[in-house]
Amino acid sequence: MSESTDTRARPANPLAARVHGPVRIVGAGLLGSSVGHALSARGIDVILDDSSPSQLRLAIDYGAGRAARSDDAPALVVVAVPPDVTADVVERELAMYPDAVVTDVASVKLEPLRTLRERGIDLTHYIGSHPMAGRERGGAISARADIFVGRPWVVCRDEETSAADLALVEALALDVGATPIEMTPEDHDRSVALVSHVPQLVASLLAGRFLDAQDASLRLAGQGVRDTTRIAASAPELWVQILGANAEPVVDVLDALAVDLSAVADALRAPEAPGSRRAVADTIRRGNDGVERLPGKHGQNRRFDQFVVMVDDTPGQLGRLFGDFGELEVNVEDLRLEHSPGAQFGLAEVSVDPTALRRAVEGLQERGWKIASTTND
Amino acid sequence: MSESTDTRARPANPLAARVHGPVRIVGAGLLGSSVGHALSARGIDVILDDSSPSQLRLAIDYGAGRAARSDDAPALVVVAVPPDVTADVVERELAMYPDAVVTDVASVKLEPLRTLRERGIDLTHYIGSHPMAGRERGGAISARADIFVGRPWVVCRDEETSAADLALVEALALDVGATPIEMTPEDHDRSVALVSHVPQLVASLLAGRFLDAQDASLRLAGQGVRDTTRIAASAPELWVQILGANAEPVVDVLDALAVDLSAVADALRAPEAPGSRRAVADTIRRGNDGVERLPGKHGQNRRFDQFVVMVDDTPGQLGRLFGDFGELEVNVEDLRLEHSPGAQFGLAEVSVDPTALRRAVEGLQERGWKIASTTND
Repeated sequence: MSESTDTRARPANPLAARVHGPVRIVGAGLLGSSVGHALSARGIDVILDDSSPSQLRLAIDYGAGRAARSDDAPALVVVAVPPDVTADVVERELAMYPDAVVTDVASVKLEPLRTLRERGIDLTHYIGSHPMAGRERGGAISARADIFVGRPWVVCRDEETSAADLALVEALALDVGATPIEMTPEDHDRSVALVSHVPQLVASLLAGRFLDAQDASLRLAGQGVRDTTRIAASAPELWVQILGANAEPVVDVLDALAVDLSAVADALRAPEAPGSRRAVADTIRRGNDGVERLPGKHGQNRRFDQFVVMVDDTPGQLGRLFGDFGELEVNVEDLRLEHSPGAQFGLAEVSVDPTALRRAVEGLQERGWKIASTTND
Repeated sequence: MSESTDTRARPANPLAARVHGPVRIVGAGLLGSSVGHALSARGIDVILDDSSPSQLRLAIDYGAGRAARSDDAPALVVVAVPPDVTADVVERELAMYPDAVVTDVASVKLEPLRTLRERGIDLTHYIGSHPMAGRERGGAISARADIFVGRPWVVCRDEETSAADLALVEALALDVGATPIEMTPEDHDRSVALVSHVPQLVASLLAGRFLDAQDASLRLAGQGVRDTTRIAASAPELWVQILGANAEPVVDVLDALAVDLSAVADALRAPEAPGSRRAVADTIRRGNDGVERLPGKHGQNRRFDQFVVMVDDTPGQLGRLFGDFGELEVNVEDLRLEHSPGAQFGLAEVSVDPTALRRAVEGLQERGWKIASTTND
């Protein structure tokens, strides 16, 4: 994909080359502090500000940047505060630093923009953006310079946006290892509703159904349902804000989903009705086609072959396994290690390029590994 | 968990010790042939039968068992045919082998039993069962002796079931490495509806929504939505039968889910209505609590700490990493390798016992590994 080329070919330090003055980060939470760490590591002068003195102190102690000074003249301001105060802070920063480019990293893009427009603010130097990065835990203490590496960073330019301002925000994204993607705020919000906000709700709703279940029922849970509900572990506070700020696109997807859901439920209720079996089959088939459309590893729709290796549940075993992969010159594209409940060993599901499957499986078997299964029989 | 002890402490060959005569397997597909491989490997005389001569031939060639002879007197019959013909085959086998114990491995348990009762069959020697094992691909050619290892194998006894017959079916489960779990057919079907059938439908319905999306939207997809929709790749044919045969419990869960879904959609539609924010927060919170109830690794609700190691996307790197884990005597409980789209390396999310986290992270850093993040800051 082109952006992978961009990322690999990017200059050593595009932002420092462009930015004349420090970068000011407002909000020293997970995202703000992580940007601070990444830019500081590249030798850029980073100013940190936060409404919470303790949070600010912590971020500075961790090396995410320095405290503000009265004579600071930032060239770029990154607003990294919760969605519901983003517009206020952007407005304040634009007023305080009229010569700076101001961006924000809120995970919804239309609502803050709409609020700013309603207030008649001059938005010439404002460019909303959103790095597709995060972690279960927030706060300066969870911040890491690497969380943006290889992730998309959506940049919402508009007609007013000058090429120079846009280049500055895209340089910021590239500088922290992200891949800039230009989108309208409307497209961004619809997109994240579909690929992030609704999946979160669906996982939460499904997992919520487990509350009434007996322990014995849940003991039958396999890897499938574990994967389907993994993100249900996410923290409520931020999600309430995100979902609230992106309610319209989220509700649109939820409504469409509700229609599909009741259609398949009706088909199962009336198995003899004409088209019922077909309706159920189409639900599964549409799912096949839909999941196929998700960009795969390396950002491509690339397919890998899987096989499962039985690994003793003892230290060193995986070292031996991957040592053998190295000798066989097989690149492991993906790996999932699963412990069989009640068993003394783990099952390592390994994904390799189809061209390497035979070499990997046969080579491992020669080396005494037990291959439990392959998806390419 | 007790069954893990059971599994570890099980006799070398409980079935051979109990079974006086060959084990007959009807249906040489994935499950039937896999049972055949597992039992044959333990020196048990396995008879294979299948309505498809080519499938049967294939299974025998692969070593899953031998062809039937006229003088065969099986002590145990395992019916491994699709759900919609299970009752017919069970009825036939009970008539053909009145002295044998007959079990089936269909993934729904009530419908076949109901059908057999309606026909007034003597079910004294019939015990329905269901190994919680399977693979995306079916057929004798995908069969493996190991697919049952460490998995639950549900056994549905009833008042008529003799201790000896029950012991035989549980010995079968133990022999192939599974963990027998006794359940009523009703409880089984409700349980799999909740932890298997509805999660499949939910993943399929969500992934189906991607069909209308633009490529740019899907490029924002992260690991969360990938996990949530992974099983949407399952094949339709079998699922149509499974869902059809377990329609009632599946519909019950779907209806409850639909109510929850429209409730949260309404809350998002009317953010100012009293209790709206609370309703959204409760959805996420209930998901937190629900997913917590799923048995974790080693069949326990055991928690691990995670950290992310940056790994060059080249052969041998993981070997070096796991060699270091071995030296540090850190047991890797779980591992997920993720390639950052557009980046030259992978991110390895490693789960370790909390007591080993510091040793692992510090030891790896000393050895020059870059730790991108830990969940235990």
